[in-house]
Amino acid sequence: MFHAKIVVTLRKSILDPQGKAVEHGIHSLGYKNAKNVRIGKFVEMKVEASSKQEAERIVQEACQKLLANPVMEDFTFTLEEVHAQKAHV
Amino acid sequence: MFHAKIVVTLRKSILDPQGKAVEHGIHSLGYKNAKNVRIGKFVEMKVEASSKQEAERIVQEACQKLLANPVMEDFTFTLEEVHAQKAHV
Repeated sequence: MFHAKIVVTLRKSILDPQGKAVEHGIHSLGYKNAKNVRIGKFVEMKVEASSKQEAERIVQEACQKLLANPVMEDFTFTLEEVHAQKAHV
Repeated sequence: MFHAKIVVTLRKSILDPQGKAVEHGIHSLGYKNAKNVRIGKFVEMKVEASSKQEAERIVQEACQKLLANPVMEDFTFTLEEVHAQKAHV
């Protein structure tokens, strides 16, 4: 089993009004030295697969078809092998 | 200048209906072996600070005060030093 951590971000060329709003919020808190705030999505999931390659394929396809908008967003992910917990431990 | 990448996730004990909806979506695409889907927020920003410690403090406080809900969410972040681009390059 693999633990996938996926980050979906807006492409650099796309305006990010949500990020701008958060940036204003951070400035209002007094932290004027934060800038270029951009917001993305974070998705984590467990993937049952026999190999890392297969898990990679599943996550990649899920991102392309569902999680990320290919016109406006990019995605990156990491996969980490985890061992399923036994039922009686 | 530092580039901060922040991930805000719902605590494990909190139900995540958005994650459940995405999980159903992934299953409908035919990937039955994805499970425990959970959705979080990803925030990236540039922080102008004289030291990594100072940047860390700013990001930590911004997370605690604005980006994460301390009752329901956890956050982690990474900081990477970047060199500001010169104006005429």
